[in-house]
Amino acid sequence: MRIELAQNVMQRHNAQARENARALMRYNVFAVDVMGAPGAGKTELLERTVEAMARNVRMAVIEGDVCTARDARRLQERGAQAIQINTGGACHLDADMVAEVLEDLSLLDIDLLFIENVGNLICPTHFPSGAAERVIVLSLPEGADKPEKYPAMFQSCSGVLVNKMDLAGVLPVYPAEVVQQIGRVNGEMNIWPVCARTGEGMEEWYEWLHAGLRRFGRYR
Amino acid sequence: MRIELAQNVMQRHNAQARENARALMRYNVFAVDVMGAPGAGKTELLERTVEAMARNVRMAVIEGDVCTARDARRLQERGAQAIQINTGGACHLDADMVAEVLEDLSLLDIDLLFIENVGNLICPTHFPSGAAERVIVLSLPEGADKPEKYPAMFQSCSGVLVNKMDLAGVLPVYPAEVVQQIGRVNGEMNIWPVCARTGEGMEEWYEWLHAGLRRFGRYR
Repeated sequence: MRIELAQNVMQRHNAQARENARALMRYNVFAVDVMGAPGAGKTELLERTVEAMARNVRMAVIEGDVCTARDARRLQERGAQAIQINTGGACHLDADMVAEVLEDLSLLDIDLLFIENVGNLICPTHFPSGAAERVIVLSLPEGADKPEKYPAMFQSCSGVLVNKMDLAGVLPVYPAEVVQQIGRVNGEMNIWPVCARTGEGMEEWYEWLHAGLRRFGRYR
Repeated sequence: MRIELAQNVMQRHNAQARENARALMRYNVFAVDVMGAPGAGKTELLERTVEAMARNVRMAVIEGDVCTARDARRLQERGAQAIQINTGGACHLDADMVAEVLEDLSLLDIDLLFIENVGNLICPTHFPSGAAERVIVLSLPEGADKPEKYPAMFQSCSGVLVNKMDLAGVLPVYPAEVVQQIGRVNGEMNIWPVCARTGEGMEEWYEWLHAGLRRFGRYR
């Protein structure tokens, strides 16, 4: 009985995620889920991305956090349209929360939408938002064992930004080992070693976003 | 109806946690929950602690992870008795999982038991294990905003180890600000700035553990 209840809940979530995906498609909005552990640098990555791409691309960010509006403010300061969702204790965004915010956004004026989830490597895995792609931000200080310890999250994403690469010489963590461990859990993943703080290594990530935008017909 | 179901589940968890606490009391075992984000350095902290205290204190570790037995193996290599719980996708340990393992441990031969939770700053908050104390490991690279963003976790703990202090000069994160932010969310917390990798700053943490052991009558 309890399993059935859980299945019903998941079916409803998945149905709402498909509904969100259709709404995004209707307006040719390319949406990307951004996930990762607390402190991996998800917001910093988006700050840098918004700065770098703002000249050609109209972006918006949905910020998921247990509480505070800190992260939305950070993005707004960079000139992005940013809306904060406070989950009030819940450990992940779900499609209902995202649907509510989509109604408040003028999708016609958005090319690229980022949906930054709550900092958590587990719970968001099984809650699709309706975004076309999902990526994970994994910071070097977290260590090389994270793909193996949280495989479902890595298997649910099409790309991983290995962030804080500027610490490569300082930490007892080897980027090559991180890349190898990611490949063992999901061999299909795009891997982008970056430093969101300095912007180093971000070009391929931007290229991937531009390719997604082209796919969504969002190109002049 | 759904709220009632959730309340019943939580009541059952809390009852099992009290049951665990009684079992630990019966054998004068001082138990400490160790929580924190993925990659905060929880296991490294325990490796270092086991090494430093093994001469006088008999320790055991319960390791919670979504999957792999990596962390238990790491502790075993340091000579600790370590048992791995794989939650199989679940985002936190609960009192039932801990109860099952307690049955396998020879509590008579243990002074100090660490219960390392799954890497997660949210979900473990509301699932007590039965341990007498809870501490959180927060690593400097995670940034100074974590207490404010995950207040419930910080409010549920009596101490926080600010780990990876060796990176203080390298990161754009100021230890004083981290300490200040912790104080704003929970002014009662013990705060121990440490580097688990080198062992620096760990003495006060050991002292706190020894004080707990004395309280539990575990002293020669």
